[in-house]
Amino acid sequence: MNQPSLPSPSIRGPADHDIRNQIVAAANEHFSQYGYGKTTVSDLAKAIGFSKAYIYKFFDSKQAIGEAICSQCLAEIVAAVEQAISEEGLSATERFRRLVKTLITTGVNLFFNDRKLYDIAAFSASERWPSSQVYNARIKRFVLQIVREGRELGEFERKTPLDETVDAIHLALRPFVNPLLLQHNLDYVEDAPTLTCNLILRSLMP
Amino acid sequence: MNQPSLPSPSIRGPADHDIRNQIVAAANEHFSQYGYGKTTVSDLAKAIGFSKAYIYKFFDSKQAIGEAICSQCLAEIVAAVEQAISEEGLSATERFRRLVKTLITTGVNLFFNDRKLYDIAAFSASERWPSSQVYNARIKRFVLQIVREGRELGEFERKTPLDETVDAIHLALRPFVNPLLLQHNLDYVEDAPTLTCNLILRSLMP
Repeated sequence: MNQPSLPSPSIRGPADHDIRNQIVAAANEHFSQYGYGKTTVSDLAKAIGFSKAYIYKFFDSKQAIGEAICSQCLAEIVAAVEQAISEEGLSATERFRRLVKTLITTGVNLFFNDRKLYDIAAFSASERWPSSQVYNARIKRFVLQIVREGRELGEFERKTPLDETVDAIHLALRPFVNPLLLQHNLDYVEDAPTLTCNLILRSLMP
Repeated sequence: MNQPSLPSPSIRGPADHDIRNQIVAAANEHFSQYGYGKTTVSDLAKAIGFSKAYIYKFFDSKQAIGEAICSQCLAEIVAAVEQAISEEGLSATERFRRLVKTLITTGVNLFFNDRKLYDIAAFSASERWPSSQVYNARIKRFVLQIVREGRELGEFERKTPLDETVDAIHLALRPFVNPLLLQHNLDYVEDAPTLTCNLILRSLMP
């Protein structure tokens, strides 16, 4: 039986994949306690009981480990949004409200409460790691999808160029999506989402 | 001839007022070079050639000096906005565009370019000093004034409660008004104001 070749050259087999996951899980634990910025790969190797050289067999750098953690975390937010907005029979307006609400509650939880991933997410956002670029692009696609659907259903206005509408909404959501901005918005996560949602939805009225 | 008594107890006469200004000017210079956070009143006293005790005759704390600098800086932004929007014969839409544009260009200049006041402004915003609260309230009053005028002229919709509209707009402008958010938005100050302005103005359409 022919097996398809594995997509990434750095993953050489199921065992390697397990070890990668093991390193990521241990690093996640370690970073959330000691911070990402201050930890070196040597610290990490010592803490999880692997040699530094062994870790470098699986990851090119500390950032590569951070990236893996970040990608996981941001993928969780995306999955939560996907689930919240994909329910059948919702209006585009309701889908948009769910998008915003889920983005904020999941983001606040992951970055600041449960797992204190803020430290890594902030590095990712400020240094524009691929994980945060992929995340931003994904959020923008959600916005595009909802705006397009709302326009097709006659729920939203169609005069403004679609690109401009999507860019402007994506920008208006940035304070709640980007962890660097979100950290200064934690006092606002109760009321602000509704106010911002309502303003955006008024701007979409036909 | 009876002289009215001076309003603030800490300002005891024109000479004292001059000395206060002199301290503020010197502190401003010193902070912009060495940062507000790291400087102590002793450092400051040494740098400007006054005794620490003498400085404490005029200011209760380092924060009081920082506040004086911050108030001046934020008053400059407010004055610039006032001038930009008070021109006769403008539509409410045009006044709103000018409000946003002036807020951003003056803020970016004062906080980040010319005088590097970001350090102090960030303390003021994150610790909610009176100067930044007064500033926020003033910006909100500008928004209220323009929205109210636009409603009276029939330029803007009147269905949404005035309070909600003003709060939501004030919030949407926060990333460009609050220096803590603005620092992460410097890459966006070219295009974002127009996009955000257009979105807000669409939300105000009757």
